Amino acid sequence: MELPSKLLEKAVNEISQLPGIGKRSALRLVLHLLKQPKEQANDLAEAIVNLRNSVQYCTVCYTISDNQVCEICSSPHRDKSVICVVEDIRDVMAIENTGMFKGVYHVLGGKINPIEGIGPAQLQINSLVDKVKKTLVSEIIFALSSTIEGDTTNFYIYKQLQNFDIKTSTIARGIAVGDELEYADEVTLGRSLLQRIPYKTSVNT
Amino acid sequence: MELPSKLLEKAVNEISQLPGIGKRSALRLVLHLLKQPKEQANDLAEAIVNLRNSVQYCTVCYTISDNQVCEICSSPHRDKSVICVVEDIRDVMAIENTGMFKGVYHVLGGKINPIEGIGPAQLQINSLVDKVKKTLVSEIIFALSSTIEGDTTNFYIYKQLQNFDIKTSTIARGIAVGDELEYADEVTLGRSLLQRIPYKTSVNT
Repeated sequence: MELPSKLLEKAVNEISQLPGIGKRSALRLVLHLLKQPKEQANDLAEAIVNLRNSVQYCTVCYTISDNQVCEICSSPHRDKSVICVVEDIRDVMAIENTGMFKGVYHVLGGKINPIEGIGPAQLQINSLVDKVKKTLVSEIIFALSSTIEGDTTNFYIYKQLQNFDIKTSTIARGIAVGDELEYADEVTLGRSLLQRIPYKTSVNT
Repeated sequence: MELPSKLLEKAVNEISQLPGIGKRSALRLVLHLLKQPKEQANDLAEAIVNLRNSVQYCTVCYTISDNQVCEICSSPHRDKSVICVVEDIRDVMAIENTGMFKGVYHVLGGKINPIEGIGPAQLQINSLVDKVKKTLVSEIIFALSSTIEGDTTNFYIYKQLQNFDIKTSTIARGIAVGDELEYADEVTLGRSLLQRIPYKTSVNT
């Protein structure tokens, strides 16, 4: 796509580097910004720069937080010995929304993905192992998405932790509550059969 | 969606004001930016600010241009007496890509849309009428999208121009080249029948 203005081209190129935004969408966004008051474009730019330059991570669980230690890690009501391993802050928010988890989190910051050049060293894996070594951890719950990358990451961490005397578990995979069996994919349905649980347990939760 | 960080919340709020981007997509984009080098976020912000603050419009046709008069308006090979009225720069680019148009453009900057508070005064309509008054214009071609807003805008301009001795036309609506009749919508098919053209004309172009 050839654009008749260098300024326009630069803005479109920068915006289209964001995931899921092509050149056409970027042009649409840019033309929208041009119709808005200047302040909106300036505020947008400022918010991006401020965030990127001043973002802070909780020094305990590595989630994004305005404080050195995030609210969850500093709460006296959370069980610090149960750690849920997640990919990023979105997963923390999703699990917090359930209101079902009273432990704490450990945010890896991604999944092992050699194609994109993300190895264990780019993730908060060593700090997790350190935490297990140095603090009283009773259980690690893996809550990564069940993709190849997620499974690889789970397995890598599991290997690192297998010599420690702790429980490791993963969240249950199965048919979503309310879903019809006939529309479920075979892998999920198969797993939910293999990993069936005592009826009494399912009624109590 | 409650976010655990003010900086994060500000960035998500600003990005989700863009059209077609909700809070969730905004959070995804922000988390992506946080994984990229700082330069990328800064470049993005800079490109947006630069464009918004320094954008220039061609003083003849009002398209976005780095020069006072855009390439098309300053070209000696374009027929200045035939003016194609379009909504924005995307339409200019689309028509230029056909290589079929040798006249010049007039970019309105939008369509009349009372619901969004866009009236004739917000668009480059008076400047078009001025152009017709002061320069040698033989034909005005309306190339706005055929929505209620587009048709309203066409009609408003048509009314303004009807006392001048110029031809006004609109681009042809009809079945797209290569399309099957059975899948065409009734309005388009109906129009393409009513506005049928001599067979010889269709073969020659």
